[in-house]
Amino acid sequence: MTLPPPEPGFEDRIRDSFERQRAMETIGARLVHVGADEVVIELPFRDDLTQQHGFLHAGIVTSVLDSAAGFAAYTRMPADAGVLSIEFKVNLLAPARGERLRVVGRTVRAGRTISVVAADAFAVQDGAETHVATLVGTMMTVRGREGISG
Amino acid sequence: MTLPPPEPGFEDRIRDSFERQRAMETIGARLVHVGADEVVIELPFRDDLTQQHGFLHAGIVTSVLDSAAGFAAYTRMPADAGVLSIEFKVNLLAPARGERLRVVGRTVRAGRTISVVAADAFAVQDGAETHVATLVGTMMTVRGREGISG
Amino acid sequence: MTLPPPEPGFEDRIRDSFERQRAMETIGARLVHVGADEVVIELPFRDDLTQQHGFLHAGIVTSVLDSAAGFAAYTRMPADAGVLSIEFKVNLLAPARGERLRVVGRTVRAGRTISVVAADAFAVQDGAETHVATLVGTMMTVRGREGISG
Amino acid sequence: MTLPPPEPGFEDRIRDSFERQRAMETIGARLVHVGADEVVIELPFRDDLTQQHGFLHAGIVTSVLDSAAGFAAYTRMPADAGVLSIEFKVNLLAPARGERLRVVGRTVRAGRTISVVAADAFAVQDGAETHVATLVGTMMTVRGREGISG
Repeated sequence: MTLPPPEPGFEDRIRDSFERQRAMETIGARLVHVGADEVVIELPFRDDLTQQHGFLHAGIVTSVLDSAAGFAAYTRMPADAGVLSIEFKVNLLAPARGERLRVVGRTVRAGRTISVVAADAFAVQDGAETHVATLVGTMMTVRGREGISG
Repeated sequence: MTLPPPEPGFEDRIRDSFERQRAMETIGARLVHVGADEVVIELPFRDDLTQQHGFLHAGIVTSVLDSAAGFAAYTRMPADAGVLSIEFKVNLLAPARGERLRVVGRTVRAGRTISVVAADAFAVQDGAETHVATLVGTMMTVRGREGISG
Repeated sequence: MTLPPPEPGFEDRIRDSFERQRAMETIGARLVHVGADEVVIELPFRDDLTQQHGFLHAGIVTSVLDSAAGFAAYTRMPADAGVLSIEFKVNLLAPARGERLRVVGRTVRAGRTISVVAADAFAVQDGAETHVATLVGTMMTVRGREGISG
Repeated sequence: MTLPPPEPGFEDRIRDSFERQRAMETIGARLVHVGADEVVIELPFRDDLTQQHGFLHAGIVTSVLDSAAGFAAYTRMPADAGVLSIEFKVNLLAPARGERLRVVGRTVRAGRTISVVAADAFAVQDGAETHVATLVGTMMTVRGREGISG
């Protein structure tokens, strides 16, 4: 990892971008920590986000994993760049149930154009955590609008 | 694929299970087709499901891909079984924008315990379709409650 | 897909590059077809390429899937570019055994920097084919040496 | 993880199975460590295992990642069981070049039927290590021959 450290003010940039992710607001996710190469998002459990067995839907869990991982990569990107998900894979480890989901995203390798990221989701219940899902994915740095459409 | 064809009444079983996926109702997804090994779900575009660039959030797209793929596998499962996502990988091909998302899930290989599934998402705008995402994943047949927790 | 068609002479370019893949020679793989966005490679079964149950090792199967998929993307790249695998995911569908493996790689979406590819492996025995593995992956176009190290 | 610890003699079981993986012998891989939930395999660099740029072929790297990850899961399986790869995803982080590859496989979640595994590959050169690839995958416990064909 030869990239420079995050540019000053990166925390505000992440918070601004998070607030523009309307989907995060809709599902009730909250940005609880922003550090260099690491972002934590929490999602309180809600009955209207479940699948047929009453657990959080895997796609909802993925929404938070993807956002946490993408923003972790974004902490190292230039201030005028945007971040786009290229691909991700999620392994579901245990049912996502409890009081809330805590999701930790981090940068595995920060590159100029392509970054590799990871994120882990933990179900929190009575102060205990269960590892319920893990993501590994690829994020792309897009400058201006050039890369948005590929 | 040596599995028997879907059990009679499988369409109703899929529709019942879809209706119990509260997350699908919350995001406004509709089940529009159920066939043997194939399920189609549509999601009208909504501003409150977007990421920071105004496109549908990759996690929301994944929610529909996962449901369509899982239900496609479910069409071939015994009537007393449930279906659980083990893992999936999604490649994002183009921004998910337009009037609505059309998602086609299908079974690639139907096994007794493990099924491999795929799903493709198309953005529909003015009657034209753009391929925006593709999923390949693994689904598990769970009998009774035994497999729900792993 | 708004990329131009393959540049003249692309078949020779693929064949040259395939011959420089020493690993393909070592395992005995043969390039049997090159078309726009599609490459076919065959691997005769060999006992010294197996895992503990006597089937072809999943990593060997992946070697051929990756090469077929990468070269499919390479057919659409500029003559002075190189192709690098960013990531791939492989689902194993059935044991890889038989007389030979036939692997078909194709381009799903050809982009300027990033291409999405797929490949399928079929075990051939007595003229019948069994679908044994499927890959979806991401390839990167690298110009000069700039992108080789990321 | 509620599974019992590895059964006595698990190290010998792993070593026996590794020796039956003819592909590992063919590429020159060596089993260098077996512990509960962790297996380390090394692969000396060889020119005949490269892709077109002279780096180790991604499929060869994957072969070692898959074996290390699969054997890590196998340490926790019953003595009469076998292990099969269901799927894996590999992200390539940097060119695989150097004196040798060191690959560490580990169990992320050990389940009765399905285990989730991870593996990381490091290129070793002059005593320094570079993280070159990471795998996350799913392994299946097969009893007798029942599961071998799905």
